[in-house]
Amino acid sequence: MAPNLLKQAYPWIKTPLIIGAPMRLISLAPLAVEASRAGGIGFIGSGTDTSNLEHILQHAQSLLSAHPIPNSPTTTLPIGIGFINWGASLPIALPLIARFKPAAVWFFAPSSLTSLVEWTTATRAASPATKIWIQIGSVAAALEVTTACRPDVLVVQGTDAGGHGLVKGAGIVSLLPEVADALANLGAEAPLLVAAGGIAEARGAAAALALGADGVVIGTRMLASPEANIAAGYKREVVRARDGGQTTVRTKVYDMVRGTTGWGKDYDGRAVVNRSFVDAGNGMWEEENKRLYEAEIEKGDDGWGVEGRMTTYAGAAVGLVTEIKGAADIVEEVREGTVRVLEGLKGEAKSKL
Amino acid sequence: MAPNLLKQAYPWIKTPLIIGAPMRLISLAPLAVEASRAGGIGFIGSGTDTSNLEHILQHAQSLLSAHPIPNSPTTTLPIGIGFINWGASLPIALPLIARFKPAAVWFFAPSSLTSLVEWTTATRAASPATKIWIQIGSVAAALEVTTACRPDVLVVQGTDAGGHGLVKGAGIVSLLPEVADALANLGAEAPLLVAAGGIAEARGAAAALALGADGVVIGTRMLASPEANIAAGYKREVVRARDGGQTTVRTKVYDMVRGTTGWGKDYDGRAVVNRSFVDAGNGMWEEENKRLYEAEIEKGDDGWGVEGRMTTYAGAAVGLVTEIKGAADIVEEVREGTVRVLEGLKGEAKSKL
Repeated sequence: MAPNLLKQAYPWIKTPLIIGAPMRLISLAPLAVEASRAGGIGFIGSGTDTSNLEHILQHAQSLLSAHPIPNSPTTTLPIGIGFINWGASLPIALPLIARFKPAAVWFFAPSSLTSLVEWTTATRAASPATKIWIQIGSVAAALEVTTACRPDVLVVQGTDAGGHGLVKGAGIVSLLPEVADALANLGAEAPLLVAAGGIAEARGAAAALALGADGVVIGTRMLASPEANIAAGYKREVVRARDGGQTTVRTKVYDMVRGTTGWGKDYDGRAVVNRSFVDAGNGMWEEENKRLYEAEIEKGDDGWGVEGRMTTYAGAAVGLVTEIKGAADIVEEVREGTVRVLEGLKGEAKSKL
Repeated sequence: MAPNLLKQAYPWIKTPLIIGAPMRLISLAPLAVEASRAGGIGFIGSGTDTSNLEHILQHAQSLLSAHPIPNSPTTTLPIGIGFINWGASLPIALPLIARFKPAAVWFFAPSSLTSLVEWTTATRAASPATKIWIQIGSVAAALEVTTACRPDVLVVQGTDAGGHGLVKGAGIVSLLPEVADALANLGAEAPLLVAAGGIAEARGAAAALALGADGVVIGTRMLASPEANIAAGYKREVVRARDGGQTTVRTKVYDMVRGTTGWGKDYDGRAVVNRSFVDAGNGMWEEENKRLYEAEIEKGDDGWGVEGRMTTYAGAAVGLVTEIKGAADIVEEVREGTVRVLEGLKGEAKSKL
């Protein structure tokens, strides 16, 4: 999809485009709608479980009907839906895609390339106006997925991202330009690229545009919003944590204690280091670590923190998240800040030193 | 040091400032001088071994005398020296710093903060015009080092960097803004920040400036220059490798097989995956892996590659390095490309979508 077609597909957006990540069971109707309402694109994080998706979409539709987003299209719902394809049910999702016509679907972590092609083909047939976004974390996957699925948008996820992604990876500073170069021979046929991973504010967003991104995904930052569907203890931990390169880690330990074990071997998740991770490193048996995790749930908000066991999925940019703020305000702040950074840069590059 | 003082200290530089990393035993006089000659700042990679530093500095001085760099200062040598402080000898280095007066020294991986303070204090006494650059990889270290040493420049190294760095880390997209914020209360007393790690070309360099960097370090890219003091097999492997997030890895295995075991527990190195790494992962005894490495040295250039055992230290941006090019040409290409990226961005941000 050529860049000018994105604004045609999403007439309510403002640029630079800020996108709310489809955080599984965290980004529900309120967060997705507020991100779009601010001129971004919000995504519902349906994830691996499609059983409640109809209810979530009805909620989004009612929020949008009550307070329509200016310039939103009549043919599609001005939000997207994110699926974690290895777990999501296509038979459940497909009729909902056909009925609600989301502006985008975001596919991630399919069980196979064949399955991804199936989802893509079925979605295009069910809702031709819905754009196909596919998340990848390597140059090899970018080439493979683009050839097989011809997505409208590739979400290029760097290894600084919070939550799930590839065990091995590069930051967007290296990954995004190499993906762009690898796809350059496709010309106007190449997908748009949006950058995800490690971006929490305007400087990171401006950097992503410099790298060649057509839009910028924020995830961890959105955890610290009233709209995020997580416990107060989780939000408090996101606001507290600093120096994310040292205090977060990519690991499979949190999947183990939580029992979310359907992820393929190439995937793990980035989260703040806590007792579950430390104990696993010290050789604690999985059964015991899992038992302690389940007992910790009883503690409620007090179960989060360095000495707690509730999982704080968050990216390496968690240290840049220092306050709770409304999702729409976050989108506006990042977008307007990005413009200021870019305006400042031209002169700065020539005069600063 | 306030930004405008950098150009006073380094009157030959052109902006945006491109810096050649002090790659140990790779960046010697020819590479350092060529980087500075192109309007950047080149660094000799003295590393852990100061025994040959006098000879290298004499070589640099003779190159500079034969073909002086326009606008270079009379009081200092227009290149820097990089030390890996846990191994370098202060008694050897100090008289050379006093005698050659490098424009900068770049300190990295000291055995202790006390040792770092000692190097800093001694250098300032020996050569007041020499600016102190210190490399860090975390927000905590940035605060600690700045408080203790008041460096002129902090080199903020993201985890995508090739060669040695912190085992744990974030990409510069997250790390650099958080370091800048953590030091913001120092005002004009704050060190300048230069970004390192994952930057191989203009888009990455422009991104670094967007993140708030005052200059941009390139390392891996410089490996693919005639001036880099490495085997042809190493250069060939750097040019060949793609998709660095998948094909490079941070590990201590290469230190083990090479016997460079003086690094602290918090440090490892990023290099292209080869047989040494794969065999270590499959449980090969260290003695056997080391023996095979030493035997591989006999193969010369054929010892590099995925099936080889010679170490290819390189960053996650290795896939963006696709040709051998002169060091001065690389510096000019990246600098001029960065200006083009920045000039394109202002309009792009408003019109692209």
